[in-house]
Amino acid sequence: MESKETVYHILINAVMSCIGFFVCLSIIPKFGDMFLRADLSGVDMSKRAKNKIPEAMGVICGAVFLVIMFLFIPVPFYRHLADPNNKQFPHHEYIEYIAALLSICCMIFLGFADDVLNLKWRHKLWLPTMASLPLLMVYFVNFNSTVIIVPKPFRDFIGLDVNLGVLYYVYMGMLAVFCTNAINILSGVNGLESGQSLIIALSVLVFNFTEISGDSGQAHVFSLYFIMPFTGVCAALLYHNWYPSRVFVGDTFCYFSGMTFAVVAILGHFSKTMLLFFIPQVINFVYSTPQLFRFIPCPRHRLPQYDPKTDTVGMSFTKFKPKDLNPLGKLCFSLLKLFRVAHIRENTGEDGMYAECNNLTLLNLILKFLGPMHERTLVIVLLTIQILCSLVAFGIRYQLAKLFYDV
Amino acid sequence: MESKETVYHILINAVMSCIGFFVCLSIIPKFGDMFLRADLSGVDMSKRAKNKIPEAMGVICGAVFLVIMFLFIPVPFYRHLADPNNKQFPHHEYIEYIAALLSICCMIFLGFADDVLNLKWRHKLWLPTMASLPLLMVYFVNFNSTVIIVPKPFRDFIGLDVNLGVLYYVYMGMLAVFCTNAINILSGVNGLESGQSLIIALSVLVFNFTEISGDSGQAHVFSLYFIMPFTGVCAALLYHNWYPSRVFVGDTFCYFSGMTFAVVAILGHFSKTMLLFFIPQVINFVYSTPQLFRFIPCPRHRLPQYDPKTDTVGMSFTKFKPKDLNPLGKLCFSLLKLFRVAHIRENTGEDGMYAECNNLTLLNLILKFLGPMHERTLVIVLLTIQILCSLVAFGIRYQLAKLFYDV
Repeated sequence: MESKETVYHILINAVMSCIGFFVCLSIIPKFGDMFLRADLSGVDMSKRAKNKIPEAMGVICGAVFLVIMFLFIPVPFYRHLADPNNKQFPHHEYIEYIAALLSICCMIFLGFADDVLNLKWRHKLWLPTMASLPLLMVYFVNFNSTVIIVPKPFRDFIGLDVNLGVLYYVYMGMLAVFCTNAINILSGVNGLESGQSLIIALSVLVFNFTEISGDSGQAHVFSLYFIMPFTGVCAALLYHNWYPSRVFVGDTFCYFSGMTFAVVAILGHFSKTMLLFFIPQVINFVYSTPQLFRFIPCPRHRLPQYDPKTDTVGMSFTKFKPKDLNPLGKLCFSLLKLFRVAHIRENTGEDGMYAECNNLTLLNLILKFLGPMHERTLVIVLLTIQILCSLVAFGIRYQLAKLFYDV
Repeated sequence: MESKETVYHILINAVMSCIGFFVCLSIIPKFGDMFLRADLSGVDMSKRAKNKIPEAMGVICGAVFLVIMFLFIPVPFYRHLADPNNKQFPHHEYIEYIAALLSICCMIFLGFADDVLNLKWRHKLWLPTMASLPLLMVYFVNFNSTVIIVPKPFRDFIGLDVNLGVLYYVYMGMLAVFCTNAINILSGVNGLESGQSLIIALSVLVFNFTEISGDSGQAHVFSLYFIMPFTGVCAALLYHNWYPSRVFVGDTFCYFSGMTFAVVAILGHFSKTMLLFFIPQVINFVYSTPQLFRFIPCPRHRLPQYDPKTDTVGMSFTKFKPKDLNPLGKLCFSLLKLFRVAHIRENTGEDGMYAECNNLTLLNLILKFLGPMHERTLVIVLLTIQILCSLVAFGIRYQLAKLFYDV
């Protein structure tokens, strides 16, 4: 009986997600003028025409998502609510929904504030940490399982399991910060932010449906309830954000999407699998670190360089004097040269003292190996990589894991 | 022991509220340039100098408030969290905090979106309703007490009590919408929005401390935990918003403050007392209805008219042809004339067909009776009225109520 009810709840959620898709599809263009009037706009730097395009449109998706969730939340609790003698109300389940929404709502708010105000980096790091506190407290009181199973090869040294204790909470807090920023830094061409989010969401969806009949099925049902509406609003946004973009998604969307993934990963107990779906973002983050931590100078924009003559995008570069780099910068520079993972031109500039290195993003890395290409081709290549990584993730999760764990 | 613990929690909250006050006091001016760059600014229409002043600064107070609450929330649950065998964790209490914060966070977000995008009226009415749904659901599962005690004079006809059922939820949802908008429409002179909010907050604070040892003391402790940090950030904002304003508070602050009051009134079970603290706002709302519902034409700004020669503010007017009013408009117009509660000039305009009527706000009503005055005098008069109304509210709550209820 309970499982039959759950099917109904999932169906209701699916219907609401479809409605959310069509609502976003229809209202996003209508809000364009309002955003332009508010000066929330950007110029697409990889186009011949320099029109102003509405920015931060992810805020509409976020608002529609919140409304869907507010209306949906009573559904799974309907049986308890309809019972006049509701002493048995599952507060511990309800609180997961509310705390998850609180974290997501905070991030949509923070993202929108960032789009409007251009916040500083320090705000971008510690505000998501704050926003994940209520979530971590819910995790603490509902599960407080901080034990991880040690992979087989290491069991002789460490034992069967390790209690990470407070470190596990640090890990989860960092997961929230990582997810919210990882999507934000893998961006710069039309449709990439919304496209990668959609692929990750669909991967999570497949994973949840695969695991729904397993031991921790309820956690995956919980994740579905959030991911399905997210997929709906995200797909509608991608439609308008696809090359050539009529709208930009803004930091709002990146934070919203990252926090949604972090929330379902934490409360759905599949943070390791979630990180597998983030492989391209992890690669991009690791490759970016020399610039993110300013070992190598980082210009304001790192997006690929547009060539209006050929209507293609190619690598963009950062220019600096190698001898001015600090020791860590020099080390990074040598490693990039050694492993040939960056396109480097040395002894440039009038005095021959400068070096140029492509900006360290996954986009430029692909352009280094494949050469300049049309913007739409680049985003298709990137999204194909994202899909392949999801397949690899499923392979690791369901095949390779057998070698390391008793599945 | 429990009450001694509660005292410690209140003290910790008070200390954090003081920190919040000083943090807001120091960072609000620092964010000014960032807001001006984002074009979040307005010109003070009641000053000789037409400088741009940062707008929507309430968002900083809101963010500081949220951070304080995120950090404070573990405190009241410390005993349960520290207990390794935390089977007895009071989820039903914790959920009140999270749901309250969710509603408040949604309203800060909505208010900020309104400041940036200038939302339409329909958004301003149904989005707060959505944002109060999780709160109402918490009320439903935790209390679901929809019975109201009938005042003595009516008991012969209706009985001792009446179960309002779903109507009670409609009432609470409307309370949230009313509180968020009521502060927003009683505005227009420096320091009024933050000043009235501070006075209401202090009144609630006094009320909570009075009732803390009563039967429903726990509900008043809950209210205190929210109202003390709110008082802190609100006082800091008032300091910068006081005449002559260096910052404007924006819709963000009005929504934030209104929702905070609605939340503590609903979950603290003192919605009737809260409405008593809102007497000036209720009067302003009732007096404004002919213009709010467009029975009488409503210009975009209804704030008092500034006279640069005398540096005073006087009544502002709306101009229309009486014969073009719809029947309800004509009725309102007649009533305003009959009761002499508006300053009306008839047969004006070139053809003598126009009438002028002061904009229907409490500010203009005061200016009608007291004549033009300096802006700072007007805000002091208004805040004095707010304080007197709070005293009346306490009188009604503690003295007059005895006539109608068995206290």
